[in-house]
Amino acid sequence: MQKSVPQPTGYAFVDDYRRVRELTLSLTAGFSEEDMMLQSMPEASPVKWHLAHTTWFFENFLLQRFFTGYRCFSTAYNYLFNSYYDAVGKRTPRHQRGLLSRPSLSEVLAYRDHVDNAMVHLLEDADTRIARLTCVGLHHEMQHQELILTDLKHALFQNPYAFTSIATTSLPPQPPLKPATFIEVAGGIARIGSSDKENFSYDCEQPSHRVLLNDFAIASAPVSNGEWLQFMDDGGYQKSELWLSDGWSHCVAEHWSAPLYWQKQEDHWQQMTLQGFITVDPQAPVCHISFYEADAFARWAGRRLPTEFEWERVAAAEPVAGNFLENGHWHPVAGHNKRTFRQIYGDVWEWTNSSFLPYPGFKAEQGALAEYNGKFMMNQMVLRGGSCVTPVHQMRASYRNFFYPHQRWQFSGLRLAG
Amino acid sequence: MQKSVPQPTGYAFVDDYRRVRELTLSLTAGFSEEDMMLQSMPEASPVKWHLAHTTWFFENFLLQRFFTGYRCFSTAYNYLFNSYYDAVGKRTPRHQRGLLSRPSLSEVLAYRDHVDNAMVHLLEDADTRIARLTCVGLHHEMQHQELILTDLKHALFQNPYAFTSIATTSLPPQPPLKPATFIEVAGGIARIGSSDKENFSYDCEQPSHRVLLNDFAIASAPVSNGEWLQFMDDGGYQKSELWLSDGWSHCVAEHWSAPLYWQKQEDHWQQMTLQGFITVDPQAPVCHISFYEADAFARWAGRRLPTEFEWERVAAAEPVAGNFLENGHWHPVAGHNKRTFRQIYGDVWEWTNSSFLPYPGFKAEQGALAEYNGKFMMNQMVLRGGSCVTPVHQMRASYRNFFYPHQRWQFSGLRLAG
Amino acid sequence: MQKSVPQPTGYAFVDDYRRVRELTLSLTAGFSEEDMMLQSMPEASPVKWHLAHTTWFFENFLLQRFFTGYRCFSTAYNYLFNSYYDAVGKRTPRHQRGLLSRPSLSEVLAYRDHVDNAMVHLLEDADTRIARLTCVGLHHEMQHQELILTDLKHALFQNPYAFTSIATTSLPPQPPLKPATFIEVAGGIARIGSSDKENFSYDCEQPSHRVLLNDFAIASAPVSNGEWLQFMDDGGYQKSELWLSDGWSHCVAEHWSAPLYWQKQEDHWQQMTLQGFITVDPQAPVCHISFYEADAFARWAGRRLPTEFEWERVAAAEPVAGNFLENGHWHPVAGHNKRTFRQIYGDVWEWTNSSFLPYPGFKAEQGALAEYNGKFMMNQMVLRGGSCVTPVHQMRASYRNFFYPHQRWQFSGLRLAG
Amino acid sequence: MQKSVPQPTGYAFVDDYRRVRELTLSLTAGFSEEDMMLQSMPEASPVKWHLAHTTWFFENFLLQRFFTGYRCFSTAYNYLFNSYYDAVGKRTPRHQRGLLSRPSLSEVLAYRDHVDNAMVHLLEDADTRIARLTCVGLHHEMQHQELILTDLKHALFQNPYAFTSIATTSLPPQPPLKPATFIEVAGGIARIGSSDKENFSYDCEQPSHRVLLNDFAIASAPVSNGEWLQFMDDGGYQKSELWLSDGWSHCVAEHWSAPLYWQKQEDHWQQMTLQGFITVDPQAPVCHISFYEADAFARWAGRRLPTEFEWERVAAAEPVAGNFLENGHWHPVAGHNKRTFRQIYGDVWEWTNSSFLPYPGFKAEQGALAEYNGKFMMNQMVLRGGSCVTPVHQMRASYRNFFYPHQRWQFSGLRLAG
Repeated sequence: MQKSVPQPTGYAFVDDYRRVRELTLSLTAGFSEEDMMLQSMPEASPVKWHLAHTTWFFENFLLQRFFTGYRCFSTAYNYLFNSYYDAVGKRTPRHQRGLLSRPSLSEVLAYRDHVDNAMVHLLEDADTRIARLTCVGLHHEMQHQELILTDLKHALFQNPYAFTSIATTSLPPQPPLKPATFIEVAGGIARIGSSDKENFSYDCEQPSHRVLLNDFAIASAPVSNGEWLQFMDDGGYQKSELWLSDGWSHCVAEHWSAPLYWQKQEDHWQQMTLQGFITVDPQAPVCHISFYEADAFARWAGRRLPTEFEWERVAAAEPVAGNFLENGHWHPVAGHNKRTFRQIYGDVWEWTNSSFLPYPGFKAEQGALAEYNGKFMMNQMVLRGGSCVTPVHQMRASYRNFFYPHQRWQFSGLRLAG
Repeated sequence: MQKSVPQPTGYAFVDDYRRVRELTLSLTAGFSEEDMMLQSMPEASPVKWHLAHTTWFFENFLLQRFFTGYRCFSTAYNYLFNSYYDAVGKRTPRHQRGLLSRPSLSEVLAYRDHVDNAMVHLLEDADTRIARLTCVGLHHEMQHQELILTDLKHALFQNPYAFTSIATTSLPPQPPLKPATFIEVAGGIARIGSSDKENFSYDCEQPSHRVLLNDFAIASAPVSNGEWLQFMDDGGYQKSELWLSDGWSHCVAEHWSAPLYWQKQEDHWQQMTLQGFITVDPQAPVCHISFYEADAFARWAGRRLPTEFEWERVAAAEPVAGNFLENGHWHPVAGHNKRTFRQIYGDVWEWTNSSFLPYPGFKAEQGALAEYNGKFMMNQMVLRGGSCVTPVHQMRASYRNFFYPHQRWQFSGLRLAG
Repeated sequence: MQKSVPQPTGYAFVDDYRRVRELTLSLTAGFSEEDMMLQSMPEASPVKWHLAHTTWFFENFLLQRFFTGYRCFSTAYNYLFNSYYDAVGKRTPRHQRGLLSRPSLSEVLAYRDHVDNAMVHLLEDADTRIARLTCVGLHHEMQHQELILTDLKHALFQNPYAFTSIATTSLPPQPPLKPATFIEVAGGIARIGSSDKENFSYDCEQPSHRVLLNDFAIASAPVSNGEWLQFMDDGGYQKSELWLSDGWSHCVAEHWSAPLYWQKQEDHWQQMTLQGFITVDPQAPVCHISFYEADAFARWAGRRLPTEFEWERVAAAEPVAGNFLENGHWHPVAGHNKRTFRQIYGDVWEWTNSSFLPYPGFKAEQGALAEYNGKFMMNQMVLRGGSCVTPVHQMRASYRNFFYPHQRWQFSGLRLAG
Repeated sequence: MQKSVPQPTGYAFVDDYRRVRELTLSLTAGFSEEDMMLQSMPEASPVKWHLAHTTWFFENFLLQRFFTGYRCFSTAYNYLFNSYYDAVGKRTPRHQRGLLSRPSLSEVLAYRDHVDNAMVHLLEDADTRIARLTCVGLHHEMQHQELILTDLKHALFQNPYAFTSIATTSLPPQPPLKPATFIEVAGGIARIGSSDKENFSYDCEQPSHRVLLNDFAIASAPVSNGEWLQFMDDGGYQKSELWLSDGWSHCVAEHWSAPLYWQKQEDHWQQMTLQGFITVDPQAPVCHISFYEADAFARWAGRRLPTEFEWERVAAAEPVAGNFLENGHWHPVAGHNKRTFRQIYGDVWEWTNSSFLPYPGFKAEQGALAEYNGKFMMNQMVLRGGSCVTPVHQMRASYRNFFYPHQRWQFSGLRLAG
């Protein structure tokens, strides 16, 4: 399904740099300057801001430190495009990123060129420290590639006028699928996380450590739209006894009655996708649900969500392949019957019942990058496996994504355990 | 100071239509598509939205009703660009006008062309009903000309990066001025408002009626920045006894300590203007203050604000001339010493101590235009006289502007009475 | 209907003082210490706080200034029971008055005794300045007598458990009434307000001044519950075109569909009253409506609200008599047919379409009492005539009450004009 | 230090019932009816409500189900005093518990008598199901004993007028203490939680299961006020780099600069305690801090918080003894040097870095009691060990308390690990 790509390592050089940076720009092909200004909520950022912020990352953490004689494109950008690094300094308030009409898109593109030229120069003669930090920068950029599509989807949904597909590949035919089954997995001590210095991982995935697991069962496939419709038909959104207390408060206050982006059209459900508005496919994984909804569904089904450790135990034995950003669908598809486990990687991020907390022996990155993950280790739940808008190079069994349990705008779904 | 212009009447034809519509576009010469997307708060709208909404007004209230065979540019625009007319139907939520990346600016400009062509055609053979409604539409458009500059100033202030003058004329030299004095005016019965059908006025200015006034004194000039600095130096923003109770709550909660757009630079005050950042001119009228601040200043000065009737009594005898939008300064200037009363018209809107309430015998316009003014007759205070961003054609002695007492982003100042 | 009482004057002595202070306590006969703790919203205060605050008024403005050697009951009370006098000093935050379990009710009653003993002593030999300020204090206390009943009604409504009548007199039989008619009143110059130093009036009623009125018509009776039910049946709460813009926002956000305290019981409407829960009497005046509802009703009826000047013009010729607090019903009654105008005074406060603004030549009281009325002259609408919980001594043609246009917990109704 | 008490079991009979119920009432000896009305925030409840709610628990879950012919004291109480059991029905909104002036305190006490009489009767002939549920009810009541003191402390802090000690025993002398040291603990597989049916535990402590721990070090004592003062002096509340992102937002928004209840008095710190206002004792454990503060302190100290598993590993070997509610101090004391670990139990709840999540194999209680713990397993952090207001019978090594990470009004402190 996905093209063969070179495996990522922990060090990035000129070719890696060029490939990732070009992919970012290629995602924006269908958007106008005005589209790239949109900010629909504080958690989501304008595309233009993503383009600039990822560039700022290289300028700030590499060029300003290691490129002797480097000339800053604009000192003001350090304020405008810092995201959340207190150690770097003050910055545009997060909810006001949509007010940056200036600099213009063309200036931001010139900024990208300016930094790319310098980075290519720097990388031609890079030591491992530079190659390592560049690798961090590219993984950071891949995260923002995903956010570009995720955030823009949310923004365009607020004003569906003139909205059409922005995906690059149409959806494949969806053959009939076998129903999901539950696979028994033996417990014992599992090795979780990564300490592999050759291949890239974030500090929050480290160190590799042992976790004791009970025997458990886990579903062969993510929960499908068809199953979700049964939950809805059975009053799942109306029964408080299925919900966590905080979840029920959100459900009532925000009038949840279906996943985000779903709209009832007379007798059937449609959903807004990056392929345009389409009819909900009962075989495809359900997507754009909060942790609270995933948890309520699991309780309704008499199951539970897996822990991130159970998930990783299973995923570590599976190949990192699936419906990723490079496929160009930018929407989850029904999958196929080839392997025991379906869609462990790609399609939808899978909520786990694990809080995003430090692993035993966790050490934050040094310097400003200490703020990259560590300071978010509270109130967020771990998601695993990547989605249809995740770059494949970013994915690995140990990758930990995290969001607040009420958030729905990510490409998030679930897989049952229990 | 201002160019000679034909006096407005209550009926508008092709030449009037063209002149007003072209003026609107000319204001946007210095702005990018991205600038024209900005919405900095719910009360302020993007320039692109203003361009489209004023066009929608003609399409909805004229072309769709009187132009047989008129083809709507886009039916969706009726939703997108309706402002607050419940009788017309649902609409974009006010605080989401900044999320309209689509239609693009070029589509909105095409919309303007489409409607302009049809309007010109319609006006070639217009009866008085059409000429009257067109006149309403042009006065409506003039209000939005003012808002384009007012709202964009607020938006650019949120991100002063790359901000430079957008005015078309630089500020004139400011000669020394005589201090303001208080002019005694004899009381008696004054005629207030307008019933003149030949010249345009809004329903809220009607009917003309008699009001009994006591003798009063009113200042020959608006309060200046120099006088405002004395108020500040004397602790005006710290003394609760000078303030209305609701005003003091705002002052404390929003940390008011100077007019909006003022910034302390070491030992002097600067202000952001549409001329760029400039040093505060002590002779120029103070601008961008709320009613609450104006009222507190008056109490500090041992005076009071005039009623809108006192103001109109004086203004009716003065020529409608001054520093208006057409002058291109887009900032209040110091004025000159030629007449008894200085800057009654233009420069800054003057807060009065009158609530925006119906005149005796008030009848709202018929149909959807009933919503134009009448439904806002609560919680708002009247301002009079126009400002440096008001089109001169819009102004007359009976014109009633109105805003909430805490609002500061209008070009609002004050003149003392008492 | 009401007992004969001595007419109030501008100076109060021992007998006046005793009568008013005793009436206050008599109102609390049916309440427990726990009832007197209740604060249901920031605008409403606990009964215990009212008992203490009115006492603080005498201690602070009279005893501490004019009683040589006076010993303060407790210096802490100056903080605890100041309402809103910035000039006097800091105070308990308004929304936390319900957290004053200490001092206990019995301590507050001892405080009242302590202050009463001193006041009686002071008044035995009072000069006119003291007699004048005492008169202010007693009028202040009468306002709080009304608030004791008004606020407690709101608090008990939040927890109707064990709620029964707390009125001292049951409702009288309601004879059939003639329908209201519209009475034509000739315009001309009316004298409004009060400059009479012999009889008490607040600063906001002063000075007496002339106002020019057009001819107008005004209803012979307040709007009844029966008329209000017609408005409701006709969709009055669902039609945005009847409402002011700000009013419609409140109506939607707060789900207004009937007056406050009304509850649908299968096929009829009940209302909570200080007489207990009773069936809505179609002949009695509608009560507990906001200005916004009154205004929407008037528009629905093709009428308008009177100005406060029109109201005073009519009321000045009527006797101050009606269903007041002393009657003990504490609920509006249907009235009788004896005079042309029905229920001008008593039963329900009547919303006018006048903002609470200063009269020409208004001068606030000197000293801390300057804050009594003047600082509230913004965003509030004037009500006239008193209600069934207003002490009759407090009422006069020139009395101006004022509340925000969205507030409903007062005994507020309306009379049509137009 | 604490009196010898019979060890708790999983089944409660008449003597247990009487002892616990009487202890509850004894706590309220010093409070007036008015004190017992206070609700200072939605999370805290009035004492009267606690007295009634704990009684409702027995009436609803025992008497109504197992006592044939039981006569309900008042059916309305089922609405008034249900806390959060959706399965039981609607209830008083949580933030309005302070508005229940009715029923009066004396009625609530009569309710307690009524239920106690019936419970004693029921327990005389109780089967194990009843004895088990009664045990749940008594443990529930013990939790509310703690909350009575915790919530009232918060309420009285809002109005410190007339506040004096309400503790029953004065603070003991505080001898010099050895500084805390770090104790090395060997890792390995630890048994966590409880499956012991003979001794009481909540569903959330079950089932007992194995957890793999690394070697770790843990402090011999909780962090003291003296250490906290060093953190404050070193700018701990001003350095964003020490804080979790969500924690820093709270710190800034709520102006945290010291633990709750601390007040600077010129050159030293005082704190409000249930012993009255006292000078902060540098040897006593710091108390009334949020998780966010605990976490920031640990980072500042170059340490971390223990997980709940590490804590339980250590605590399981220690006797359940310490400064508990029965001691009557109701404030943490400095402890003593007798054992290796100081104050593992009692004095202050210790924040752990574990989220309150289900144990492997967790099964919620059946029926309405399913809502007791399970639905709160999100966004909350685990605290361990009990405090100076926890009844000693309630405590055990496996007990999991949980609060939101920003909450400070509990008697919460910390012990370092790492």
